[in-house]
Amino acid sequence: MLLNKNQKIKQKDELENETAVSELRRDLVSGTWVVIATGRAKRPDDFKKEKREKIKESPRKCPFCNLASPEEIGDTLIYKKSNGDWSLRVIPNKFPAFVHSDDLNEREEGPYNLMDGIGFHEVIITRDHYRQIAQFNIQETAEIIDAYQERYLALMNKKFINYISIFHNHGKESGASVVHPHSQLIAMPVIDPDIARSLLGSANYYQSNRQCVHCEMIGWEMEEKKRIIFENKDFVVFCPFVPRCAFETRIYPKKHKSYFERINNEEKMNLAEALQIALAKIYNGLNDPSYNFFIHTAPCDGQSYGHYHWHLEILPKTSIWAGFELGTGIEISTIRPEDAAEYLRSVKI
Amino acid sequence: MLLNKNQKIKQKDELENETAVSELRRDLVSGTWVVIATGRAKRPDDFKKEKREKIKESPRKCPFCNLASPEEIGDTLIYKKSNGDWSLRVIPNKFPAFVHSDDLNEREEGPYNLMDGIGFHEVIITRDHYRQIAQFNIQETAEIIDAYQERYLALMNKKFINYISIFHNHGKESGASVVHPHSQLIAMPVIDPDIARSLLGSANYYQSNRQCVHCEMIGWEMEEKKRIIFENKDFVVFCPFVPRCAFETRIYPKKHKSYFERINNEEKMNLAEALQIALAKIYNGLNDPSYNFFIHTAPCDGQSYGHYHWHLEILPKTSIWAGFELGTGIEISTIRPEDAAEYLRSVKI
Repeated sequence: MLLNKNQKIKQKDELENETAVSELRRDLVSGTWVVIATGRAKRPDDFKKEKREKIKESPRKCPFCNLASPEEIGDTLIYKKSNGDWSLRVIPNKFPAFVHSDDLNEREEGPYNLMDGIGFHEVIITRDHYRQIAQFNIQETAEIIDAYQERYLALMNKKFINYISIFHNHGKESGASVVHPHSQLIAMPVIDPDIARSLLGSANYYQSNRQCVHCEMIGWEMEEKKRIIFENKDFVVFCPFVPRCAFETRIYPKKHKSYFERINNEEKMNLAEALQIALAKIYNGLNDPSYNFFIHTAPCDGQSYGHYHWHLEILPKTSIWAGFELGTGIEISTIRPEDAAEYLRSVKI
Repeated sequence: MLLNKNQKIKQKDELENETAVSELRRDLVSGTWVVIATGRAKRPDDFKKEKREKIKESPRKCPFCNLASPEEIGDTLIYKKSNGDWSLRVIPNKFPAFVHSDDLNEREEGPYNLMDGIGFHEVIITRDHYRQIAQFNIQETAEIIDAYQERYLALMNKKFINYISIFHNHGKESGASVVHPHSQLIAMPVIDPDIARSLLGSANYYQSNRQCVHCEMIGWEMEEKKRIIFENKDFVVFCPFVPRCAFETRIYPKKHKSYFERINNEEKMNLAEALQIALAKIYNGLNDPSYNFFIHTAPCDGQSYGHYHWHLEILPKTSIWAGFELGTGIEISTIRPEDAAEYLRSVKI
C-alpha cells in the first residue's frame, strides 16, 4: 500500500444527510440529464444581488462607435435612419474564426480529419453604445432580427456553407469582449455537435412518435403554464422543464416551423416583442446579468429537416461551469425553472 | 418588408480577407469539430500576462481550515501525518448536489422522465490553505490519488451508483468557491452525457478497427512527439491534437487500461509525478491560472467497458465560453496545441 494502514482512519461510507433531495430531469431531445439541486437552492432574487463586474469602455475608445467608412470595412449590410445616419451595420469580424475561400482543403493528419476553417464571420452592430436590446423598442429589436434573416439568406447557399450560427454575447462573464451591443453570425462548413445531437434527437423522436418533440414540449408547457413567461400570437417564451442553467429562457414559434430564415414580417415583429420582453425581464429581474442568446435552426446543407423546430435560447450567466459540468456535461441548476419563470413573470418592465 | 428598402444599402457578400485561415480538427472519439483560430492566435506567453482575479480568503475564515471534528462532520476518510495531525480529509459536501437514499423514486411528469438526485457528494481536502498541487511533492500528490481510489472503491458498488465523477476546481474563473485546495467526488445514478458519448465513440471505433481509439491517439502522439509535455514509465502527458480549450493537457496511462480504480501503487506514484509536473508547468508557464481537472473512467454500472481507456483531463481557464461555443458546442481555440505543448515543455519547474 502507498500509505501506512495505521495512518488511515475510515469513518463511515453511509451518510445521514438531511438536505432536500435533488431532482434529475431528462431532456426530451438530447436524452441528457440535468440536476435541479434544491439542496443548494437560492431564492430568485438572490441571483439579482450577485455582484456584476462591468466592462467600462467609453464611446470615445469604442471600436464600434469609431468604425471606418462602410467602403473601407466592407460592410455587408447597412440600415439607415430617416436622417441618413446608420442605425445598424453588419461588418466582417476583424478577427474571424472562419474566413472565405474557394477551397475547403480537406485532409488527414495521422488518424485525424481536418479541413480549413472556411466560412463567414460577421458582426451585427446597433448604433447606440449604451442601449441594449432590453432597453430597445420593438421596432429596433425587429431591425436586428431582420438583419439576421437578411444575412442568413445571403450566405446560406454559399459554397461549403452547411450551418449558420447566430448569437449574441452580452457582458464580460458571457465572453463579450466589446461592451457596445452587437450580435455575431458564423457561417461554416460543418454541422456543429450540439445541433447534430439535437437534430438526431428530434429525428428519432419523430420516427417513434410521428410528432415533433419540440411541439410536444411546447404543448405541455402551454397546458401546464407554470414555466411560461410571455406569449403572443406567434411565439411563446418559457423556462424549459430541463434547463441548461438557472433562468434559461427559450422562445419557440408556436406553430411547427423548421427554418428560422423563413420567418415572415408579422412573425418578425412578434419575435421582436417576445425577445425584447424576455431580455427586459432578465435585465430588471436579475440586475443586468451577462447572458448569451443564440438561434438553433435547421442546417442549410441541402438536406430536409421537416422534423426540426427552430427556436432561440437565452442563457443568463448566473454561474460558472466547473469541473463537474466540464467533466460530465451535466449542469447543476440551483433554482427550479418553475420558480425562475414565476419570478420573471412577476418582474415589471 | 419590415424596413423601407431605401434605408438599406447592401455592400457585398464576399469579403477579401487576408487573415490566416483557421483549421477545423475532428475529434477521433466524439466526432465533433474544434476550430484552431490562427487568425486570432496569441503567443503562448500572452496567456501568462492575462490578469488573474484571485479570491482572497484568510485561513482564519476558511471553512476547510476550521473544520469541526471528523466525528461531527462524518468524515469518510482521514490520512494522518506521523505527528498525528491530519494531512487529508474526505468529508461530505455541505451543499450536496446528490444525497444518499434507499429509493430512487423514478417518475414521469408530462412527457419527461425524472428521478431523485441520489448518490454521494464528497470533498477531498488537503491540509495547507495556500499550497496547491502545483507546489506539492510527489508523495503528497500520490496521497490525493490514493484518496480518490479509496473513495471510488468504497462507493462504486453502492445501490443506484452507476458513475463516479472525480474533479478538482482551482481558482475563481473555474468555479471554485473556496480558495483552500480541494477535489470533489460525485457518485450518481446516471451515466453522464459526456462519458456516454465518449463510450459510444470508443465502442464504435473498437468495432470498426479492433483497436482502442485512445491507444491509436496515444500511439500517434508518441510517434509525432510534437504535443508531448512529459512522460514516465506508465503515463504520458500531452496537449491533444483536438483540444477543448487552449492549453488543454491530458494524462493517459500508456498501456490500455479501462478502469481508474484498478491503478496499482507504482502507477499511482507515476500518475502523481505526471499530474504534479503538468500542474506545475501550467502554474509557472501561465501564471497560476484557474483550471479544472477531472478523471474520465469506465462507469461502475456492472457493464463491461474493455474498449475504454481511462484518463485525466486538465482544462486551464484561459477563455470564457460565449454564445458560439454554447450554441454550437464548438470551441474556438486561439493557440495550436503544438505551440502550447512546446511552450509547456520548455517551462522550468
